Amino acid sequence: MSSSNEQTTGRPSSAHRSSAAGESAVTVLGLGPMGQALAGAFLDAGIRTTVWNRTPGKDRELVERGATSAATAEEAVAAGELTVVCVVNYDAADAVLRRDAVTEALKGRTVVNLSADTPARARDTADWAARHGIHYLDGAIMTPTPTIGTPDAVFLHSGPLEPYEQHLPVLRALGGTHTHLGTEISRAAAYDVALLDIFWTASAGYAHALAVARAEGISGRELAPFAKGIAEILPPLFEEWADDVDDGTFSGETNPLTSGASSMAHIVHASEEHGIDAGVMRAAEGWARRTIGLGHGTDGLSRIAEVLGRH
Amino acid sequence: MSSSNEQTTGRPSSAHRSSAAGESAVTVLGLGPMGQALAGAFLDAGIRTTVWNRTPGKDRELVERGATSAATAEEAVAAGELTVVCVVNYDAADAVLRRDAVTEALKGRTVVNLSADTPARARDTADWAARHGIHYLDGAIMTPTPTIGTPDAVFLHSGPLEPYEQHLPVLRALGGTHTHLGTEISRAAAYDVALLDIFWTASAGYAHALAVARAEGISGRELAPFAKGIAEILPPLFEEWADDVDDGTFSGETNPLTSGASSMAHIVHASEEHGIDAGVMRAAEGWARRTIGLGHGTDGLSRIAEVLGRH
Repeated sequence: MSSSNEQTTGRPSSAHRSSAAGESAVTVLGLGPMGQALAGAFLDAGIRTTVWNRTPGKDRELVERGATSAATAEEAVAAGELTVVCVVNYDAADAVLRRDAVTEALKGRTVVNLSADTPARARDTADWAARHGIHYLDGAIMTPTPTIGTPDAVFLHSGPLEPYEQHLPVLRALGGTHTHLGTEISRAAAYDVALLDIFWTASAGYAHALAVARAEGISGRELAPFAKGIAEILPPLFEEWADDVDDGTFSGETNPLTSGASSMAHIVHASEEHGIDAGVMRAAEGWARRTIGLGHGTDGLSRIAEVLGRH
Repeated sequence: MSSSNEQTTGRPSSAHRSSAAGESAVTVLGLGPMGQALAGAFLDAGIRTTVWNRTPGKDRELVERGATSAATAEEAVAAGELTVVCVVNYDAADAVLRRDAVTEALKGRTVVNLSADTPARARDTADWAARHGIHYLDGAIMTPTPTIGTPDAVFLHSGPLEPYEQHLPVLRALGGTHTHLGTEISRAAAYDVALLDIFWTASAGYAHALAVARAEGISGRELAPFAKGIAEILPPLFEEWADDVDDGTFSGETNPLTSGASSMAHIVHASEEHGIDAGVMRAAEGWARRTIGLGHGTDGLSRIAEVLGRH
């Protein structure tokens, strides 16, 4: 994804470690695989790093590499100006941050929450932070753990610019590109949700296609080169359909929804003839049929986005 | 998709128009936008072309360009050795081909059915053709009408090699690449279904992502560069997951299903908080939860393909 950053209106920052980072201190709350990767990258950059995890025993390797292990979350956040949170979701983040002692210790400090959840949870957390005099930044990590600390990592951020710019030198230790998407706190989570929507839906579709192909005697390796060809035709279409929804044009000249729905029905039949659940495609066909039923059968697939968004 | 052809075990044929094509005659049944594009490409290659459509009036432009208009389908198929069928599905194809007069006229001739439907319908049509002494080839057109007659067109074929090789010089007039996937008649339809499964599922996911993003104040044009980035990370993953299902390895080290299911739940919540239907992602999450419930939570997404295929 890093190649896309220059095309955004955000503020991409390429990965080079600031000398300022060496004088800083950072706290990492949450030591799952991603939290450990984040703490490890801070340590590699020579940043004083304090770590804490709800269940103990996750910090051994990090302590060997120079991290300070805190006995409590409040002790951990008191160790520096910047706390990075990386837990499974915002329920887990709340369980750590919204304990009185931790909230008190965070006053005047900055939290960057890299946990994943919905935009609404990011907004709610920003409200809580504002009520307690805590500087709050929300973020999303778009790449898997092995990319952390390398140029391939992709981080999205949103929230107030001042603490973002103040702590960016430290965050750059995490490698990759950092894009500030806007001051509205929920933007990073909104991008995260929308992009993972594309990723997981496409991936589920591919898993289903593999199942159907194999039921027809086609191996994964036989299908893969053609499947890659399908993935390669998506980027220009994604651009075209984005223009469609922004401009209210939904050109279906070369690929009208009526023809798409017919194709989707073939897929459902072919799948169910083999006893393979076609629930994902049935739901997608439902969207296409609903959009056609509203009188948009000659429009392209982008019309589905407009119809889904109607209230 | 054309770049993928060399990687298949099929027989790709690059687009150059054989001189043999000029001496040939071809019949096109079905003059929707795709049928007209096929007939137009044959005419451009100087091939004697006879056309017919169930409802009249679709052949005017083609006749002006030199096509012969047949009054009946039986008259049309009698005009040459090769009949190309391109109608909406196999119900429509049967309605044309399985009339006694047409079946009789096709005896000893070759039919290439480029209509889309399920692999089972291709097998059924091959049975019918065998009973009536008709040479039958099944095919799929993987690219939209504007590609026909250009190097970008992609055709998949399956069925007996002899008639395929006999008529390939004429078929090459359609441009692009022609890949023979095997003698099993259903292979082209099976590839078609599996590849369109990926295409339509990914496209539906993108339409949904656009709707969610816009509800969060992110425009299509803001999302598109990042969405393209997501599409770009799919090809290597597609290859990896194909190996997984072929080899029975389902590595989830960097992206276990449990974490995927959690991410899918965020997407469902974020969507439904805006009143946007999340049926596709709900179905995908259902597959992930079912696979986790069967004890595969630490496996990767490719395990879903294996679980979907169990009987």
